[in-house]
Amino acid sequence: MNKMNSVFIATSIDGYISDRNEGLDWLNKIKVTEGEDMGYGAFMNRVDALLMGRRTFEKICSFDMDWPYEKPVYVLSNTLSEVSEAYKGKVHLVKGELKAVLAHIHSKNHLKLYIDGGQLIQSFLAKNLIDEMIITTMPVLLGGGVRLFGHMPEEQWFTLVKSTVCMDQIVQNHYKRSADSI
Amino acid sequence: MNKMNSVFIATSIDGYISDRNEGLDWLNKIKVTEGEDMGYGAFMNRVDALLMGRRTFEKICSFDMDWPYEKPVYVLSNTLSEVSEAYKGKVHLVKGELKAVLAHIHSKNHLKLYIDGGQLIQSFLAKNLIDEMIITTMPVLLGGGVRLFGHMPEEQWFTLVKSTVCMDQIVQNHYKRSADSI
Repeated sequence: MNKMNSVFIATSIDGYISDRNEGLDWLNKIKVTEGEDMGYGAFMNRVDALLMGRRTFEKICSFDMDWPYEKPVYVLSNTLSEVSEAYKGKVHLVKGELKAVLAHIHSKNHLKLYIDGGQLIQSFLAKNLIDEMIITTMPVLLGGGVRLFGHMPEEQWFTLVKSTVCMDQIVQNHYKRSADSI
Repeated sequence: MNKMNSVFIATSIDGYISDRNEGLDWLNKIKVTEGEDMGYGAFMNRVDALLMGRRTFEKICSFDMDWPYEKPVYVLSNTLSEVSEAYKGKVHLVKGELKAVLAHIHSKNHLKLYIDGGQLIQSFLAKNLIDEMIITTMPVLLGGGVRLFGHMPEEQWFTLVKSTVCMDQIVQNHYKRSADSI
C-alpha cells in the first residue's frame, strides 16, 4: 500500500490521551531507559508527513521546546487562516473535507501520513480512513480527560501485528486494519 | 493479601464490553483453539465468589445455557427483592453501600471476589476498591456500546504483572493496583 494513514499515540488503560486538565504529566511517570523511544523514531522514519488537528498543534506550540518535527507537518483547521511567524515554513495549513485534504497532501507526494490528535483520529476513524494504529498503553486509569476513541457508525476490525512490553510496564499494540472489516 | 477484588473481562480496543445492541457476538469472531480459555479457569479457581450487578445477572440469565458458575454468586441490586425459582440457591441477593456489602460477603468467608459487570466495576473503581484487573482486548473498534470504564475522581496507577497474546490476536493484560496510587 503506497498510501497509509497511521496513528502512533499513548493512552491510559481507560483510553484517555490527556488528563482532565489536558495535562500529559502521567506520560512521564514511568522512567524510561535513555535511548528507549518505544519505536517512535522508526515510525517517524517511515512516514512522509504529519497531519494534526488545530488543538494538537496549539498544544505542541505551548511546550517549552524546539519544534520537534523534521517531517512536513500539515495542520487541519477550518478556523486558522495563518500561523505565527515562528511556525511559518514549518507547518502547512489545510482545511476542508477529509478526503479533499488527503488528495491535496497526496498531490505533494506525501503518501504515508502520521495522523495525530484525538479529534482528528476520531474523524478519520469515523470514515474508516485509519489503516494502522500503534497504541501505547500506560498502566494508569486517569478517570477523565480527552478520549482517544469516540462514536463510530460501524465496528471496525483490526489485525494485531505485534504486541510488545516496554520497561516491564507499558504495553504497545500495533494494529492494522483488517481487510474484512464489516 | 487475603481480601482481593478482581476484574476479569474482555473489551474492544475502544473500551466497550458490549456493543451498541448490548450484544456480545464480537467476542466470538476470532476462533479460539479448543481448550484455550485464556486463563479463565485458573482465575475462577482462585476466587471464592462472584459479585455482579443486576444487569449482568439478567444478561447471563438470558443466555440459552446452563448456569455457568460453580462458585457462589452474589448479585448486587437495590431493586430486586427475589430471584426466580430457577436461580434460588444459586445466587444471593445483596444490597446497600459497597463497603457494607463487602463486609457481609467477607463475613461468609468469601474473601477473593470476582467483580463483574461494567457498572459495578465502575462503582468499585470510583472508590478505589479494585485490586487487580485482567483485561482481554479484542482487536476491534466497536464504536459504541457499554463502556468498561467511567469517570473516576482520581487517577489510579497499576502495575503490569503480565501481558500475553492469545491466538496471535487477543492481548491480555494483567494489572495489579500500585501501592503508590495517587
